[in-house]
Amino acid sequence: MYKLICKDGNAKRGEFTTVHGKIQTPVFMNVGTAAAIKGAVSTMDLQEIGTQVELSNTYHLHVRPGDEVVKKLGGLHKFMVWDKPILTDSGGFQVFSLAGLRKIKEEGVYFNSHIDGKKIFMGPEESMRIQSNLASTIAMAFDECPPHPATREYMEDSVARTTRWLLRCKNEMNRLNTLEDTINKHQMLFGINQGGTYTDIRVEHAKRISELDLDGYALGGLAVGESHSEMYRIIEETVPYLPEAKPTYLMGVGTPANILEAVERGVDFFDCVYPARNGRHGHAYTNHGKMNLLNAKYELDDRPIEEGCGCPVCKNYSRGYIRHLLKAKEMLGLRFLVTHNLYFYNKMMEEIREAIENQNFASYKKKKLEGFAAEQGN
Amino acid sequence: MYKLICKDGNAKRGEFTTVHGKIQTPVFMNVGTAAAIKGAVSTMDLQEIGTQVELSNTYHLHVRPGDEVVKKLGGLHKFMVWDKPILTDSGGFQVFSLAGLRKIKEEGVYFNSHIDGKKIFMGPEESMRIQSNLASTIAMAFDECPPHPATREYMEDSVARTTRWLLRCKNEMNRLNTLEDTINKHQMLFGINQGGTYTDIRVEHAKRISELDLDGYALGGLAVGESHSEMYRIIEETVPYLPEAKPTYLMGVGTPANILEAVERGVDFFDCVYPARNGRHGHAYTNHGKMNLLNAKYELDDRPIEEGCGCPVCKNYSRGYIRHLLKAKEMLGLRFLVTHNLYFYNKMMEEIREAIENQNFASYKKKKLEGFAAEQGN
Repeated sequence: MYKLICKDGNAKRGEFTTVHGKIQTPVFMNVGTAAAIKGAVSTMDLQEIGTQVELSNTYHLHVRPGDEVVKKLGGLHKFMVWDKPILTDSGGFQVFSLAGLRKIKEEGVYFNSHIDGKKIFMGPEESMRIQSNLASTIAMAFDECPPHPATREYMEDSVARTTRWLLRCKNEMNRLNTLEDTINKHQMLFGINQGGTYTDIRVEHAKRISELDLDGYALGGLAVGESHSEMYRIIEETVPYLPEAKPTYLMGVGTPANILEAVERGVDFFDCVYPARNGRHGHAYTNHGKMNLLNAKYELDDRPIEEGCGCPVCKNYSRGYIRHLLKAKEMLGLRFLVTHNLYFYNKMMEEIREAIENQNFASYKKKKLEGFAAEQGN
Repeated sequence: MYKLICKDGNAKRGEFTTVHGKIQTPVFMNVGTAAAIKGAVSTMDLQEIGTQVELSNTYHLHVRPGDEVVKKLGGLHKFMVWDKPILTDSGGFQVFSLAGLRKIKEEGVYFNSHIDGKKIFMGPEESMRIQSNLASTIAMAFDECPPHPATREYMEDSVARTTRWLLRCKNEMNRLNTLEDTINKHQMLFGINQGGTYTDIRVEHAKRISELDLDGYALGGLAVGESHSEMYRIIEETVPYLPEAKPTYLMGVGTPANILEAVERGVDFFDCVYPARNGRHGHAYTNHGKMNLLNAKYELDDRPIEEGCGCPVCKNYSRGYIRHLLKAKEMLGLRFLVTHNLYFYNKMMEEIREAIENQNFASYKKKKLEGFAAEQGN
């Protein structure tokens, strides 16, 4: 399903064929946690800003509206009206970051819903069943996202269990994909590499899960508190042990600079909430660094957020107007920033793909990073 | 500028030519108080839902971002990127409903900003200057919106002052429209009829202001607490004393039923915040009455809000999805409801215009009201 079109150094330019269409990689997946992009951005809007993959959350959709509801309404694609690929994460990360008191057992995790405190059990089979109900294009394996920092002993036990869980995920998905009432019988499974900052554990785990011939492999448990340079080192030391002929997904990462560094180290799938989170703080991404639109200097500025930007916001609205919307707490201001920021990420991925094809990724990356670091001259 | 195309009973079908294009009446103006429609609806969206006139607020824009800022950015049309007519209300109503402690003097009103408590003075000349800076298509005269109920004596004094203020508004606008740096030198002025529920005061006032040959006339101070039947009676008794050959604007009204009743009595301009306010409460307008999308019965409903509705939301998204968005407090849910509700109003006005042209307004109105009153069978 994954075709490696070309490489430039370790950077991979791939094409991933799914039942919902082809994904050109490197790709940035646009996060719509609860089957909706933050900032009132609709799936119709996503079609206009170059979005290839939408990402939703298993845990959130399980607690609301319920995966059975989504299934009865025809699956996530029909529910949110999106015909391109959707990746669902497994709920593992949210169980460990959002949910109340939890108990990890061999069978899975017992925890309380963050909505109403209700007791929930989720194990590998439950996560697969939920994701099968959601009928996403790509399901993520149910893993433990270990705390950072964790002792070596804790990490070894955790990763061993995550491996056992992965086998159960694979078996359950195989079973689900054969059931008559399964909406997407071609659902794919990505495994998740863990091991924290212990490179040897990560490498052993990577080797072990690579044997399972899954549809893709993710690096999990990064960007959870370690430094950027440590994260880059771990990526660099682990990716060589994941199959080159499969997509490599760095979960939850990151800034535009993080993405450039990770692409250089062979990663080709990304997702991150920064475009929306920065929008909430009035921040817009540009090729000359982040802008804070709340800054008084934009009050009378009739230029777009970034001159030359092809996003629907920059093609129409001025910094002065957007600043006013943010100051007046009009929802439209957030919608504009999220739209621009997602477009910025999607567009950067397009440039990255082109740079790899043209075998000039290194110089592209250098120039891009210099731009980000430049004094915001706007 | 106003051409009375035809009448059906007292219902007027008109065409109002402005420097920003023609307005087909009866018309419902879409409210964007602070130069933005609530619910993250953009002016690009308005172009798709049949909006003819956008309405913004003099008081709100004076306090934020400041009318001088809007002027420097080229006026409201350029600021919010809207090429069709814009009506600005005068700030009078907001000064009397929103602002803190106020003192009414012959020269105008002293009051405190509801944003930061800052002392502000606004009189007829100030309101005209602000609206000239905003460069709206139609400016409203600065009036006193008297409390309801008010004594006869209070009302007589208030209306007399409103008349004196209107003359000052007219003189000031004439002056402003000749200034070289005025953005819209063709800005038009609508006078506002007041008098509360005292019909004789309203009629005398209507006669008096009709002599001024303004571009249009509004009924103000209605829908402020009196009953619907009392409001209809006042409209019925006052409208005959306003020029038929000018637009007649019922300010801040109202429900779809209110609009049908007022059209029948000769009104042809409307505005109201209900489409957005109802959206905030999960309510959608349909031809079978209002729906509460939060209702559990819509959880698995894959139909659009209203079958056959041509709005961008109904063409794509289901009740089940919208209910989920509202439950999950996703901003997208509000955007969808406001979009649908504005479309519903705009579409109803289109039907009203057609019914008047076809001389079957009475039967159209009857059928429409029966539909609204019907048990919500959805």
